Amino acid sequence: MDDMLIWGRRILASQPFSVLLGAELVSFAEDRAELRIPIKAELMQQHGFVHGGVISYAADNALTYAGGGVLGPGVVTSEFKINYVRPAKGELIVARAAVIHAGKNQAVCRCDVYVSSDGSESLCATAQGTIVRLGQPPETQK
Amino acid sequence: MDDMLIWGRRILASQPFSVLLGAELVSFAEDRAELRIPIKAELMQQHGFVHGGVISYAADNALTYAGGGVLGPGVVTSEFKINYVRPAKGELIVARAAVIHAGKNQAVCRCDVYVSSDGSESLCATAQGTIVRLGQPPETQK
Amino acid sequence: MDDMLIWGRRILASQPFSVLLGAELVSFAEDRAELRIPIKAELMQQHGFVHGGVISYAADNALTYAGGGVLGPGVVTSEFKINYVRPAKGELIVARAAVIHAGKNQAVCRCDVYVSSDGSESLCATAQGTIVRLGQPPETQK
Amino acid sequence: MDDMLIWGRRILASQPFSVLLGAELVSFAEDRAELRIPIKAELMQQHGFVHGGVISYAADNALTYAGGGVLGPGVVTSEFKINYVRPAKGELIVARAAVIHAGKNQAVCRCDVYVSSDGSESLCATAQGTIVRLGQPPETQK
Repeated sequence: MDDMLIWGRRILASQPFSVLLGAELVSFAEDRAELRIPIKAELMQQHGFVHGGVISYAADNALTYAGGGVLGPGVVTSEFKINYVRPAKGELIVARAAVIHAGKNQAVCRCDVYVSSDGSESLCATAQGTIVRLGQPPETQK
Repeated sequence: MDDMLIWGRRILASQPFSVLLGAELVSFAEDRAELRIPIKAELMQQHGFVHGGVISYAADNALTYAGGGVLGPGVVTSEFKINYVRPAKGELIVARAAVIHAGKNQAVCRCDVYVSSDGSESLCATAQGTIVRLGQPPETQK
Repeated sequence: MDDMLIWGRRILASQPFSVLLGAELVSFAEDRAELRIPIKAELMQQHGFVHGGVISYAADNALTYAGGGVLGPGVVTSEFKINYVRPAKGELIVARAAVIHAGKNQAVCRCDVYVSSDGSESLCATAQGTIVRLGQPPETQK
Repeated sequence: MDDMLIWGRRILASQPFSVLLGAELVSFAEDRAELRIPIKAELMQQHGFVHGGVISYAADNALTYAGGGVLGPGVVTSEFKINYVRPAKGELIVARAAVIHAGKNQAVCRCDVYVSSDGSESLCATAQGTIVRLGQPPETQK
């Protein structure tokens, strides 16, 4: 396992909320990241689908990783937008984020979120957001 | 307690993810809703602030309630955008959403999310999104 | 006319695209701005309504003014999101933007865009975005 | 020239605002579209860059075409979000949009906007939005 993935997993393990949701960092390279969340009963809404809040958490956190991969440690999501396109039912949420453009202090990233069911993936949401380096334009921390 | 609030709380209680986070519906009228989440250790990120995923869950769910208040039952968030403006530290997350414009099948809503600390509130995020009636333009469910 | 409005109008007059559209800065205070565009034939789409591009221009530029009012000169819109809620038909587009939260280098702002017809206003779009100071997180200029 | 492109160009030619800006539809297939705008003096802001309003018009209109390609005629942009990533200077604005997911009545689309200068392209903005069929969830027209 490479250093970046080890570093990324250490951060994820230090986020109690990510631990509560059961998120796993599967890959982490300089400009992309993949986060997975095994689907369990507590992550559902009232109709047996994964709650939108789990999907947006996955998108948001994967966006932060992608941006952090290129900007370095100490970054947060400044803002993001998400479109839900399909109710999520299956075994696994898979969020794949990539950097679209990186400047010195911020990166614009995109993330597609899939649900994996019986080994086949379907897109359930897509997101776009801005990751910023803490310090200069601090604004928020996550 | 009025019928709408009873109805809204029943739905919230039937969402395992909302129960996991400890969300409470405090008020629910025809075009607005207020959701609260007592802050606890499991909702944090690595720096002792509330995780952005909790904030965006609160915004998303409050938006859905506001839209559902005017569109009726069977609605979902189709999309939303959130700007985080301040790290959240305190005792309580408070998400207040209101309808900006409602058509027959969709409503555009806004939500301000505050963190309450020692009795004073600070804005920590602001969101805007589209709530749609299920059936016609289904797309997603939450 | 106060100094801020004079300063704001000078900038608007120096933007050839704003002149092409006929935009007017009606008010400009420390944390809010109002922009107006008299509706004319060239601003239409194919069904006789104002083109969405005119509405989003008005929102974007009013957001920049609101942010610039609090951050000072040398700002740009880093990103924004807009929901169109009603086709615009009438005499005048009115975009009113206000700062929701301002940090040192960026401001999160909101803008409601109305169409005025026979003296009564209807909301036609609502927007939310981030205005940043140039230099630190430059990214873009407008 | 195929039928879709002819149809698309006829619509563009019937939008006075698109004619004012000099927009050209370069390609139009079932789930994607490319729009170009030759840069001219009237499209600028005060620093000699293309005004953000031109960039967002291009993104918005290309998104509508991409969605219309899959949903059929009579569609509008319901909402979109755009991140500006670089000031645009050059000869040509190029907006390339594609459908990410299409349902019966709405499509979620993405658009990358480039500026072409001396034959090389640079990304200047990226957008994501929802295109809806008119009639069912009308809300807006463009």
